[in-house]
Amino acid sequence: MNLRVLALCSLLGPPNVVLAAEPPPAKTRAAGEIIAAAPDRDWRTPEPANLLYMELAAGRVIIELAPQFAPEHVANIRALARGGFWNGTSIYRAQDNFVVQFGDADADTPAKAKSLGAARTHLPAEFHRSTQGLPFDALPDRDGWAPEAGFSGGFPAARDPAANRVWLAHCYGAVGAGRNNAEDSSTGAELYVVIGQSPRQLDDNLTVVGRVLQGMELLSAARRGPPPMGIYDNPADRTPIRSIRLASDVPEAERSALQVLRTDTASFRDATEARRNRIDDFYKRSAGHIDLCNVPVPVRSPPAR
Amino acid sequence: MNLRVLALCSLLGPPNVVLAAEPPPAKTRAAGEIIAAAPDRDWRTPEPANLLYMELAAGRVIIELAPQFAPEHVANIRALARGGFWNGTSIYRAQDNFVVQFGDADADTPAKAKSLGAARTHLPAEFHRSTQGLPFDALPDRDGWAPEAGFSGGFPAARDPAANRVWLAHCYGAVGAGRNNAEDSSTGAELYVVIGQSPRQLDDNLTVVGRVLQGMELLSAARRGPPPMGIYDNPADRTPIRSIRLASDVPEAERSALQVLRTDTASFRDATEARRNRIDDFYKRSAGHIDLCNVPVPVRSPPAR
Repeated sequence: MNLRVLALCSLLGPPNVVLAAEPPPAKTRAAGEIIAAAPDRDWRTPEPANLLYMELAAGRVIIELAPQFAPEHVANIRALARGGFWNGTSIYRAQDNFVVQFGDADADTPAKAKSLGAARTHLPAEFHRSTQGLPFDALPDRDGWAPEAGFSGGFPAARDPAANRVWLAHCYGAVGAGRNNAEDSSTGAELYVVIGQSPRQLDDNLTVVGRVLQGMELLSAARRGPPPMGIYDNPADRTPIRSIRLASDVPEAERSALQVLRTDTASFRDATEARRNRIDDFYKRSAGHIDLCNVPVPVRSPPAR
Repeated sequence: MNLRVLALCSLLGPPNVVLAAEPPPAKTRAAGEIIAAAPDRDWRTPEPANLLYMELAAGRVIIELAPQFAPEHVANIRALARGGFWNGTSIYRAQDNFVVQFGDADADTPAKAKSLGAARTHLPAEFHRSTQGLPFDALPDRDGWAPEAGFSGGFPAARDPAANRVWLAHCYGAVGAGRNNAEDSSTGAELYVVIGQSPRQLDDNLTVVGRVLQGMELLSAARRGPPPMGIYDNPADRTPIRSIRLASDVPEAERSALQVLRTDTASFRDATEARRNRIDDFYKRSAGHIDLCNVPVPVRSPPAR
């Protein structure tokens, strides 16, 4: 009854990869092998000023910010983190197959709402930006939501060259700024994280500020709140946030060493191609296709020197 | 700071819908209004012999089986349920952004594995079936994974008319039969449920047996197990399953009253169109598109008579 161990191989490929001295060409290697063999130059270390550390009782969640897409929001988020805005706040919403949301659970109640401190209370919408000067590696795969889908600086994104627009995509793990009906009503204080099927209908409708690099499982397994929006009725159901700090404000000894595979490398392209056309013993039929939000962007601990 | 309540409207539309005496035409109504106004004939009551009730300490999960797609697996699952196979088993795997899996955690250990009782220990693969005689309502939207994507009998599915193949799609909530490398190595005893971004690379590679109609939030919030596959190291982390029964074997007084919106109705088509082109105050830009796995299939309690 050996049904279980091999059933449904990890999306990240086999856990233990034995590499030959001479790796075979990419087309005969699985994604996991290609990633394991990627040279060190294909991995980048995110800037500490672009990393948020969210400390929960269960562990640390690490978010990479994308100032190239949302400079005003990222500047405000840095100011909020430096002012300790999120310390003692909570994850106050978990809507199944949609998002968790965190920040000040009393933000709606003027008498109780927390001050944003030195941060700004009004920002412009940053739903999209100009394509000018922004690297973008388009996937060859068809995407129903946008003329082009691909990666920019490590983030899943979509692009409409004719409209001179590019925006971050609402894939699993995307972090966005909650807002009211007015498009310029987000400040970055109330943030949501996608925990289900990618809600790409939100693309270019909200300001996406980054994505979760580590600790998604601490957010995605939050007990769901009641319909329709998953906001907990009972404050005891909230997940307390001990603090959110910029990695650059954390003593070096307490930082998490972390590297992200560059999305503009042959290693990433080859790994994606290997996922499009799987050649392992488990798959009986290759899709010959991959959707933007099905492409994982690998994260690792840097190898020991 | 009224950022929170209206931020990120529910995928299911506004919670409280006030209908005019004469509903406006579909194109100016939101999906939630269209669904609320659907006539009773647009709702179906699933066959009790096609419903599995999984009883957890936290509540009941209801799965609708799809015998029209996987007749042999569904017959075996019925035999397993009638034999009490799952009573006292567990959810023993939770892999983030992928699946939870349940059944006999000792299935791999011949000395400890539970007998399947009167159920069969070998079944043919039922990855796809012939398109003949099967209703299929294709979405007009482009799909990268298959020539056609749409709905059949209430289930998200994909079709390749040239190959005479149709299969159930691995959308959020899909329930499939775990297998080993051999394509005919699933029995239906070990079942997985999709809890993340739709892993459609699995389509036509495993036998999908149905989908979760109610209680997804009891599965999707399971504490994640360790990488790579999320199988818990510690048996104490498993979620015990009290029982899994067919609704048809449950006394009527203990059954859950439940109806599903028919996917071959104008109500469903109009609601889907309203999601493609949203007209509410929150959305600033309509996608003009929807992906198969972003289309919810509404479930309700039958109205009081």
